[in-house]
Amino acid sequence: MNVAIVGASGYGGIQLVNLLKDNPNYKLTYLGGNKSAGQKWNELFPSLALDNNPKIENISVDLISKSSDVAILSLPNGISSTITPNLIEKGLKVIDLSADYRYKSLDLWKEIYFNEELKYKRKDYELCEQAVYGLPEINYREIANSNLISCPGCYPTSSLLPIIPFITQGIIDFDGIVIDSKSGVSGGGRDPKQNLLFAECSDGISAYGLINHRHRSEIEQILSQVTGNQIEVLFTPHLIPIVRGMLSTIYARLRDPGLTSDDCKILLQSYYRNSPNIKILPVGTYPSTKWVKNTNNAYISIQVDKRNSRIIFISVIDNLLKGQAGQAIQNLNIVSGHQINEGLNFTNFYP
Amino acid sequence: MNVAIVGASGYGGIQLVNLLKDNPNYKLTYLGGNKSAGQKWNELFPSLALDNNPKIENISVDLISKSSDVAILSLPNGISSTITPNLIEKGLKVIDLSADYRYKSLDLWKEIYFNEELKYKRKDYELCEQAVYGLPEINYREIANSNLISCPGCYPTSSLLPIIPFITQGIIDFDGIVIDSKSGVSGGGRDPKQNLLFAECSDGISAYGLINHRHRSEIEQILSQVTGNQIEVLFTPHLIPIVRGMLSTIYARLRDPGLTSDDCKILLQSYYRNSPNIKILPVGTYPSTKWVKNTNNAYISIQVDKRNSRIIFISVIDNLLKGQAGQAIQNLNIVSGHQINEGLNFTNFYP
Amino acid sequence: MNVAIVGASGYGGIQLVNLLKDNPNYKLTYLGGNKSAGQKWNELFPSLALDNNPKIENISVDLISKSSDVAILSLPNGISSTITPNLIEKGLKVIDLSADYRYKSLDLWKEIYFNEELKYKRKDYELCEQAVYGLPEINYREIANSNLISCPGCYPTSSLLPIIPFITQGIIDFDGIVIDSKSGVSGGGRDPKQNLLFAECSDGISAYGLINHRHRSEIEQILSQVTGNQIEVLFTPHLIPIVRGMLSTIYARLRDPGLTSDDCKILLQSYYRNSPNIKILPVGTYPSTKWVKNTNNAYISIQVDKRNSRIIFISVIDNLLKGQAGQAIQNLNIVSGHQINEGLNFTNFYP
Amino acid sequence: MNVAIVGASGYGGIQLVNLLKDNPNYKLTYLGGNKSAGQKWNELFPSLALDNNPKIENISVDLISKSSDVAILSLPNGISSTITPNLIEKGLKVIDLSADYRYKSLDLWKEIYFNEELKYKRKDYELCEQAVYGLPEINYREIANSNLISCPGCYPTSSLLPIIPFITQGIIDFDGIVIDSKSGVSGGGRDPKQNLLFAECSDGISAYGLINHRHRSEIEQILSQVTGNQIEVLFTPHLIPIVRGMLSTIYARLRDPGLTSDDCKILLQSYYRNSPNIKILPVGTYPSTKWVKNTNNAYISIQVDKRNSRIIFISVIDNLLKGQAGQAIQNLNIVSGHQINEGLNFTNFYP
Repeated sequence: MNVAIVGASGYGGIQLVNLLKDNPNYKLTYLGGNKSAGQKWNELFPSLALDNNPKIENISVDLISKSSDVAILSLPNGISSTITPNLIEKGLKVIDLSADYRYKSLDLWKEIYFNEELKYKRKDYELCEQAVYGLPEINYREIANSNLISCPGCYPTSSLLPIIPFITQGIIDFDGIVIDSKSGVSGGGRDPKQNLLFAECSDGISAYGLINHRHRSEIEQILSQVTGNQIEVLFTPHLIPIVRGMLSTIYARLRDPGLTSDDCKILLQSYYRNSPNIKILPVGTYPSTKWVKNTNNAYISIQVDKRNSRIIFISVIDNLLKGQAGQAIQNLNIVSGHQINEGLNFTNFYP
Repeated sequence: MNVAIVGASGYGGIQLVNLLKDNPNYKLTYLGGNKSAGQKWNELFPSLALDNNPKIENISVDLISKSSDVAILSLPNGISSTITPNLIEKGLKVIDLSADYRYKSLDLWKEIYFNEELKYKRKDYELCEQAVYGLPEINYREIANSNLISCPGCYPTSSLLPIIPFITQGIIDFDGIVIDSKSGVSGGGRDPKQNLLFAECSDGISAYGLINHRHRSEIEQILSQVTGNQIEVLFTPHLIPIVRGMLSTIYARLRDPGLTSDDCKILLQSYYRNSPNIKILPVGTYPSTKWVKNTNNAYISIQVDKRNSRIIFISVIDNLLKGQAGQAIQNLNIVSGHQINEGLNFTNFYP
Repeated sequence: MNVAIVGASGYGGIQLVNLLKDNPNYKLTYLGGNKSAGQKWNELFPSLALDNNPKIENISVDLISKSSDVAILSLPNGISSTITPNLIEKGLKVIDLSADYRYKSLDLWKEIYFNEELKYKRKDYELCEQAVYGLPEINYREIANSNLISCPGCYPTSSLLPIIPFITQGIIDFDGIVIDSKSGVSGGGRDPKQNLLFAECSDGISAYGLINHRHRSEIEQILSQVTGNQIEVLFTPHLIPIVRGMLSTIYARLRDPGLTSDDCKILLQSYYRNSPNIKILPVGTYPSTKWVKNTNNAYISIQVDKRNSRIIFISVIDNLLKGQAGQAIQNLNIVSGHQINEGLNFTNFYP
Repeated sequence: MNVAIVGASGYGGIQLVNLLKDNPNYKLTYLGGNKSAGQKWNELFPSLALDNNPKIENISVDLISKSSDVAILSLPNGISSTITPNLIEKGLKVIDLSADYRYKSLDLWKEIYFNEELKYKRKDYELCEQAVYGLPEINYREIANSNLISCPGCYPTSSLLPIIPFITQGIIDFDGIVIDSKSGVSGGGRDPKQNLLFAECSDGISAYGLINHRHRSEIEQILSQVTGNQIEVLFTPHLIPIVRGMLSTIYARLRDPGLTSDDCKILLQSYYRNSPNIKILPVGTYPSTKWVKNTNNAYISIQVDKRNSRIIFISVIDNLLKGQAGQAIQNLNIVSGHQINEGLNFTNFYP
């Protein structure tokens, strides 16, 4: 299987190259990027050297479609939509890491990503409807049969994994779900921005995007789809001084006041029994994001406040792997007929 | 006013010395510590040198009471209660940073701090009832007339400041309050513990003490006292890799669905109009803990989700100052008849 | 004394505002910046609010000269030279934080700062010769009588303070001096650059600019001036993941093999006996950059290897204060007839 | 090959388990530790779970020798010497990570490690003479035939790799070598110590052990052995706020003033042509410790100051892998007849 990585020198792209370079199932046949076009990979990334030291190409539908069977796009929002329709038309499968195809409704996308819409004036309504939301543990079958997979955002990934099993089985209230997320700085990307400078974000924490962060609408869309109800959540992202990692603390109310922490833990374990990368912890053990750094794993912990039937979920992922590029490779595995986690078992060093 | 600092070489004690050393209203007449007894201050802390380079004394009620009018205790939980009754008896005022006098009911303390109770077998029921909870912006008058002030924990300080104005005026529901707090590592103290090692807690985040952290009961006690109702909260502390600083994200439900973010902001501004160190931010501006580092300020931000009448508070403090030693000095100022924030206006360098 | 700060919203400018805002000797009469022009100070820096909330002005010689007696320039290299001649002509004193007037020879400047020269085509040879190198503990008298003071770079400051007393008194060899410096990330400025992103420079260390860093020539120029010999040094800067602080480890050879660590320490102490902000540590005590963070102090430690007559100096400063803005205020104090360290004694919190 | 890991729950031990757990050439047959004895591995390290979830045993020569062919000791200095003689006698091969067998002369060890000597009163002079210094790229043959391999300290590893090729070939002066090293905090181990607390060592840098750090004598011993001369170096270690990683900046003088940076680079490349984990960088490219994190690689960069024939080496390693446990596995591979780097090729994620 020949794979193109488009947007190879951003954090998502770097991970993708890294995840695929020693994977015998795939061959990297194209690396593309706008800013880095013309440069040799090994000069940009001496510590991630590739044997054939490829040149980063301009982003071109022709070059991609001539060289590759699948294109993984790790591009800024809006740009994906400028090449995806052509790539699909030329018979490629597309795995997109941007937000461009996460909404069934392009109109909703235009509302949320209005700045990008101003620039790109999208019309690919049908493609939005066809695209599959690439949360592989949940949407395995749809992904297997799709040629356009839109990978979830990092915040939605870390939130949906614990919530979906409970909300779809009617165990928690639809109303009043609170998602308090803490993200490492690599989530902000590799383009230089003042607020992501070490001197600005080291040794401090701040919240941002209260009420209106774009991932809130993504989370709500998926929860509404899986329940058939209009779900609203409170979602607050925070920027914390770690390079990679994301921890979400999620609060909900149990419908059955008799459920214990252990009941809920067993329920979750059972739901993910075929997903070895989703690891459910014993009650009372809480994960650090260190546990998932450089892996495609998620750890989830559950605790119930018996006094008032509240439940708390703690979930941790590596925002660049399970929250982005690792998940894309899971989707690539599925569409290619490989085991979902093949080539994704990396040793997690500690500390 | 002669002041004793007991427990001078822990993080709380260091701050206290630092806050008082150039304050003309007070004279440091005694520095005590168990582990550091016998050592000279300037050898322990060359960068915080005192002109008279005092020796750290053994902790002794006699030495304290002969030298000082007020004792500020920055000691591990349980130990305060072994000297406070004697100090009070000898006519000193005591400002205690431990949890020993935070509960009106000593029996509740024994339940929560059961390990300490096993060791110290306390019987000072009356003193617990007399002690005043030292949240100066809220309890100013009681503090002024008290000789035993128990300073709040850092988590309760950062939580109660935004909640109290809303819960006492009936603006938010008593039920379903969620407090998601993130603390810097200095909150764990200066005694070496494995989980506080740089190699363990750097570049990662984890939650701890879910449902049952001891500060939850402290928060609930105060909220129950000020409302006259039995309040239960969900409280989750997290350890983040910053040295000093604490951010709490608090979720509640508005009783009046018509209230806007601006309404709530004005309400809070009005409540703290005489507390210049409590700074209410414009709607849409969210603070970093960097803004309060090395200051006694708190910044609070408010946002309302109009769709479902939820309100989110963000509050930041320096856990070692407004969350600990700085608040103690506010209390010291009050009992000494000085302006509440005298000697506490430090320049906050950025970045 | 009316003071203009030009380049107010960079890290240097922020410190200058912070250092002067509560200083009764000076009045901030102009804040200028190119990128931030038109914005209100308090909106940019809510935690460093000024009572009069000034607007940041465009950089204009007219506005500066009409409002102010002294201009402190915290601008990118090259730009200072476009306004300094005019400001001097209009009778202002100028304290410049850039490298533009650090070299007596403009031709040398053009060689070292060739990119800037390409852009600005400088001709102010005479001004370069007139400018005084603003290392206040060394050049006090010249500074007092100058109207153009060029503040040293952060690396030169941390290197020259320990070396000058030894090299000028003939105690160390002119040859073979090694300066190994480690700088916090704020030294790279506030303009977003990829290599200064948290995700790039956190949790790692790297060297840069070997042999040819621009500060090497500045150090060599000063050492050559004070000795009357052509001095060459080895200088290696490193970027380390701290926000502010700089540590230099300096290696040299003693001419007199009989000198002990204590001899050398006493010698240095004597040299700086009138500079209370230069603190010489007891032999065997080594400073952390934490000790100087948010202060204008330098700590210096000395150790001699008796076996081979080598001497090691450790010096630490806050790169943004003693290494930049704090030193500028020392120079401002000198030219204004105030005590050198007036308004610069800040409490250093620990940890 | 059955392998015992003694001292399994320290940072060295954790790496060893991690490096061997999926390595088909070896079987972990014993995990021992004093503090953690009796606990199950997976409870201590949920994110590094082993399939058979072994119990950590007490440290016992009997248990080790009955279960294993090779013992890798990751124990505090002094303790290794209490079991190594017995293990050797029982026919095991021993790979020791402590300093106990790094000196040919036990008397020298006693001088340097006098505190440990006071406690352990060693008499194993002969074993010290027999032990091989386990720097695999240099001592490959001796290691292959040894049953006691003493792995180098992390500082010596990062220093000797660049120096040995130059000093043994007479390219640099024996005199005046300066080694300025910067180490991550994990080098201080996992036992809680105050100076390694996050709050103490984050956001600061300090030097320690000037002139007399114990690794200086180790470096000098090896350089003296390989040159047949008495070599003295200046060595200064620094503690920097990174978890894992070590960078050494080394200064020396070239004997032949005509050598260029490229000459020296080619020379080093040639020396390590059969050591693919020692990577020599193009002149002008300087490595970050990030490049080697979680790998067994070393990167070395060279720069010459033509003006005065000085040479600067920059070397980076992961202090816990190439500087400790990874190097031990290289030695294990050699004594077991496997390729030196087998099982040590890990993907280095960035950032």
